[in-house]
Amino acid sequence: MTHLIAIGGSDAGISAALRARELDPATDVTVVVADEYPNFSICGIPYYFTGDVAPWQSLAHRTAADLEATGMNLRLNTFATSIDVAGQRLEVRTPDGSTEQIAYDELIVGTGALPSHAGITGLEQLTAADGVHVIHSMGDTFALDHDLTARQPQSAIIVGAGYVGLEMAEAFIARGMTVTQLQRGPEVLSTLDPELGSHVRAELESHGVEVVLNTTVAAGEKTAGGITVTGRRDGQPYSAIAELVLVVVGVRPNTELLERAGASLGAGRAVVVDEHMATGLPHVWSAGDGIITHHRLLGQTYLPLGTTSHKQGRIAGENALGGTARFAGSIGTQAVKVFDLVAGRTGLKQSEAEHAGLTAATVQSAADDHKRYYPGAHPIHFRITGDSTDGRLLGAQLVGRYGTEVSKRVDTYATAIYAGLTVAQLSELDLAYTPPLGSPWDAVQVAAQAWEAARRLSPISA
Amino acid sequence: MTHLIAIGGSDAGISAALRARELDPATDVTVVVADEYPNFSICGIPYYFTGDVAPWQSLAHRTAADLEATGMNLRLNTFATSIDVAGQRLEVRTPDGSTEQIAYDELIVGTGALPSHAGITGLEQLTAADGVHVIHSMGDTFALDHDLTARQPQSAIIVGAGYVGLEMAEAFIARGMTVTQLQRGPEVLSTLDPELGSHVRAELESHGVEVVLNTTVAAGEKTAGGITVTGRRDGQPYSAIAELVLVVVGVRPNTELLERAGASLGAGRAVVVDEHMATGLPHVWSAGDGIITHHRLLGQTYLPLGTTSHKQGRIAGENALGGTARFAGSIGTQAVKVFDLVAGRTGLKQSEAEHAGLTAATVQSAADDHKRYYPGAHPIHFRITGDSTDGRLLGAQLVGRYGTEVSKRVDTYATAIYAGLTVAQLSELDLAYTPPLGSPWDAVQVAAQAWEAARRLSPISA
Repeated sequence: MTHLIAIGGSDAGISAALRARELDPATDVTVVVADEYPNFSICGIPYYFTGDVAPWQSLAHRTAADLEATGMNLRLNTFATSIDVAGQRLEVRTPDGSTEQIAYDELIVGTGALPSHAGITGLEQLTAADGVHVIHSMGDTFALDHDLTARQPQSAIIVGAGYVGLEMAEAFIARGMTVTQLQRGPEVLSTLDPELGSHVRAELESHGVEVVLNTTVAAGEKTAGGITVTGRRDGQPYSAIAELVLVVVGVRPNTELLERAGASLGAGRAVVVDEHMATGLPHVWSAGDGIITHHRLLGQTYLPLGTTSHKQGRIAGENALGGTARFAGSIGTQAVKVFDLVAGRTGLKQSEAEHAGLTAATVQSAADDHKRYYPGAHPIHFRITGDSTDGRLLGAQLVGRYGTEVSKRVDTYATAIYAGLTVAQLSELDLAYTPPLGSPWDAVQVAAQAWEAARRLSPISA
Repeated sequence: MTHLIAIGGSDAGISAALRARELDPATDVTVVVADEYPNFSICGIPYYFTGDVAPWQSLAHRTAADLEATGMNLRLNTFATSIDVAGQRLEVRTPDGSTEQIAYDELIVGTGALPSHAGITGLEQLTAADGVHVIHSMGDTFALDHDLTARQPQSAIIVGAGYVGLEMAEAFIARGMTVTQLQRGPEVLSTLDPELGSHVRAELESHGVEVVLNTTVAAGEKTAGGITVTGRRDGQPYSAIAELVLVVVGVRPNTELLERAGASLGAGRAVVVDEHMATGLPHVWSAGDGIITHHRLLGQTYLPLGTTSHKQGRIAGENALGGTARFAGSIGTQAVKVFDLVAGRTGLKQSEAEHAGLTAATVQSAADDHKRYYPGAHPIHFRITGDSTDGRLLGAQLVGRYGTEVSKRVDTYATAIYAGLTVAQLSELDLAYTPPLGSPWDAVQVAAQAWEAARRLSPISA
């Protein structure tokens, strides 16, 4: 009987454990979880703060009982401290503070990532007790929840305007707070081109969020009226004050355990694994936000996403049992709801394609989500990126109103990119049509045809 | 300058004309339209009767003025009577009843299909004036509208329970009428397996539609209380009476013009064309509901759909100008909204796959459209059909509530089938996820994994 240990109670570790139990119920699976919240949906936390999700327990993808019912053993509040690779033993700190060695046949490390403070002077020293928050774990969630309840802060500064930052802006607005959102770049949601990000900013502003662009935060300190952050905006000194500060400027891979065990670091200073999720250390696999990401269009990069962690975990779980599964690669598909808008993307945008050495062209267009004569039609805004040389679809960005099926329209492009289709082939797809939900040429095809038409008019590769 | 004539003001003819004008604005394009309603959305007619669409003019994909602005000439109320293939001349009956010959360099025939009465004795002799309706043109629409307004009928029998029949049931219910829906087969919406069609029937019944299955209508006649239809239900005599009867039992290709010109008939007694939309008659092309359908999985069949007509028309328009475009083939993707449900399908269902000589397996499952902790999650019911021998995805059927993005989830499968992916590869797709709109494994992947798990447990091909 194989004894498998998975470290990490989030997407990667749990997916690996579930897959191993599914494929071979004889496998003895132990999951070592640093806190007492295995298999919680970190992506769902903002919806706890909007009030859409209650109680917090419902954020669990599966309860501890559900997990144990699959036959895995959970060791909660147990922290993995070191790996003895040669001896195939994991050292952990148990809930009572003692040290224990656990033997394994195969080890899967899913220690994930840690929130970044982006090196902002002073902010790293402040904690939730001071009104400075990050939001990356259930512990962070409880700390923020406690602070909101106890102090009833009326104002918040959110440093960062990526997915979580935007979702939390919505949550704070829903709670009646004033929100100042600081973004380093020229537009919010920089995963999109600014031409589409501007729609998202307009949505934030129409709901009362004060968006401050081109602003770098250099320092933060506790002052009489709350937390003051200072930095530069458009090159000029800038400062803002609020009763609460949330720092959501990304994550960094949590690699300490594997580094000390001898693993190599690669893109984004994440642990290098091969497509089988093997670390190169005998019997040690890794998956999730702590490792490099194999990208179908970019090769090795670092692009931590929950969807990817689930896939990698499943593969690690299968291969730890002797399987030969390969991670097919991410293409960076993402979606976010911001108030009444949904934004999504897959593949590469123009700048990313160029950075990867591709000859690309990007064409923007708009098309209604369904026939305009049927009530409730809204335009979806598209940016399609294709390879100017061979016509291959490289990427798509979409923004549209909630209800326009933007995120699942992203999936059509994601599937096409996976399969290596050209932009022209999108017009050959036999897509679903009924007037309340589409058009005879679906909006995704109209956008592709706009790319083709622009290319015909100015053939870059000619 | 090429003189191109397109016959038919619906999807195929107009698509061909638009494509020709787009590719070569020097082309002289004339569209011969039998009525005065070019480019109307026939699929939208039911929504005129629900009251969702008003006025009827908004059912036009483009107005006559829009079409003429592209530079095409419209000849309305002009009926194509014969083709002189050798002389490259089209004979038409003009609005004043006279006959005219129009010379062409290239001719595209898009005469579409005609509604079928399925040979029901007596019904074919009754007309809209008697309260017996079909619904396939704007003329039919006006006739039904007039009848509903003038007579205010309170009851309707709908013969047929396909897309249009279900949409019209919704429309009649919305108008406060009682509806009896007669279906020949064992379940409504026979494009789905009955296991999923039953969800659609439950939705109809919950809105007050009386659904009568396993019922064949043999005759209809005008009686004192309305129109009486008679036939057999489960082998026993059956009759029903209503003030209005709508017959929606499908269509037959309208091939008379091309047949007389010497074209060949194939599947479904539709005109044979090659993948370039060439009829074999010199300089004569055809597209739309009058021709056979090239199907990527079935070869030549007859499967008239608006989406297909648009594609075929575009190809005919391109090739009439000397292009070499090929129709990539239908996979029979369809979607329909029925009250608060949406049903969709793409590819083959089990019986169709078997009929095509494939070794197939179909697995049913359900998965939430988005994370259950976020409000408004609903299960989507899936049936996935895959090739048991090589694991290739052959088809998918979905039913879920309106708002669960069923129809665009169908598109992910449609794209996968187009690309020849296996069911297992669906788990490799990098699909969009945000808790209000999806799951880390999207529902389409959960359904694929259910197919894989069932296959692992009972490997049919082993």
